[in-house]
Amino acid sequence: MIVGLGPGPAKWMTPEAGATIEAASDVVGYGPYIERLALRSDQRAHASDNRLERDRARLALTLAAEGRTVAVVSGGDPGVFAMAAAVFEAIEENPQWLKLDVAVSPGVSAMQAAAARLGAPLGHDFCAISLSDNLKPWGVIERRLEAAADGDFVIALYNPASRARPTGIVEAFDLLRRRKAGATPVAFARAVGRSDEKLTLTTLDEADASLADMATLIVVGSSETRFIAREGARPWMVTPRSYGARR
Amino acid sequence: MIVGLGPGPAKWMTPEAGATIEAASDVVGYGPYIERLALRSDQRAHASDNRLERDRARLALTLAAEGRTVAVVSGGDPGVFAMAAAVFEAIEENPQWLKLDVAVSPGVSAMQAAAARLGAPLGHDFCAISLSDNLKPWGVIERRLEAAADGDFVIALYNPASRARPTGIVEAFDLLRRRKAGATPVAFARAVGRSDEKLTLTTLDEADASLADMATLIVVGSSETRFIAREGARPWMVTPRSYGARR
Repeated sequence: MIVGLGPGPAKWMTPEAGATIEAASDVVGYGPYIERLALRSDQRAHASDNRLERDRARLALTLAAEGRTVAVVSGGDPGVFAMAAAVFEAIEENPQWLKLDVAVSPGVSAMQAAAARLGAPLGHDFCAISLSDNLKPWGVIERRLEAAADGDFVIALYNPASRARPTGIVEAFDLLRRRKAGATPVAFARAVGRSDEKLTLTTLDEADASLADMATLIVVGSSETRFIAREGARPWMVTPRSYGARR
Repeated sequence: MIVGLGPGPAKWMTPEAGATIEAASDVVGYGPYIERLALRSDQRAHASDNRLERDRARLALTLAAEGRTVAVVSGGDPGVFAMAAAVFEAIEENPQWLKLDVAVSPGVSAMQAAAARLGAPLGHDFCAISLSDNLKPWGVIERRLEAAADGDFVIALYNPASRARPTGIVEAFDLLRRRKAGATPVAFARAVGRSDEKLTLTTLDEADASLADMATLIVVGSSETRFIAREGARPWMVTPRSYGARR
């Protein structure tokens, strides 16, 4: 089972994820995700580095083929820039693995936790784009950012501080500034739901790329997205369901 | 609190959603969502028709302003084509409402449940587009479908059978066929996680728009999305994390 732990706190982890981990003989995943879990002494933990997704997938499939009951854990939703794709890519390498009983358990992804804290920035059509170019050419990312701007989507940016390309987010903001209004609302949502959570609201013109680290999810609004000011509290960031009502 | 119940089964509802409903004096929402809940006799249910989102939001805010503890319930994630945007739009109508203690509790959205069942179709950059034109001009939807095709995103289509525009999905497929390969994998995921779940895998050329009803989520692949055949079981639908590896 490929399982999503959600953004961090137990209140956002599904009952299915909890039950799956409980039932597993082996838990495979990135170290910090495994550390979140209270595994029993009879359960085996297989922690690994964040970038070794394919190796982790192969290990999980090898263990499952040996008859072990394996939980592959991801933060957020395993289907959104996480382990599910890595496991299915690996499955094709070995005809025996295709016969395994594999299932995916969905979870709350980082953009959803960020959106919940911010108000309703994803209230209308949106795109999710990973800025990591470990596995795709930067040109593909540029093409998608352009298309997302041309379609006036709200844009959720994952992995804005890729170790392989730390300047990616700077280039992404430059590209978006050429195509979108400078006053477009932008939010940096860091570690939402965890003790070091930090939210920063700004605009595309003012957005400071250096605020983004590996734990940050960035939301860039559509032409309809707006801040709703409140007394003594952070403004809400909202994308209305209607389009063009103000024109 | 604006709460997401997830796609249907209790195993996909967050602990926070359950606790919020437990603590509520009043639960406001679309009838079928309220019917899922086992409310106590001291809790008041306010069920309404699906299309009256703004009225429902106003009722919830009025009750909260009276000092009631209100849970506004949505299927899926309230931030994704659901009640959160409606509540924040309504909040602007009354300065008193802006002072209320409002929060959003995220949930698993329909596309994530569909993706989990299908394999990993959202394994790379994707867009979510609602085909309902109740609140936005059809031209905006066309522009976004074109952009999503131009950016080679995986596309999750919500509300493919809007009562107001039942031919929308036919037009959407026609548009996508002009811009994407006919062999692009397509999935119709109906009522995922519920007793009447139905999954249909096909291609863009073969996709039958009449399979889509109000409970259907459609996933249209990118140029990288593929089916992985299995013996005696439905193929997996996977979008690999790498891009262009096969070219």
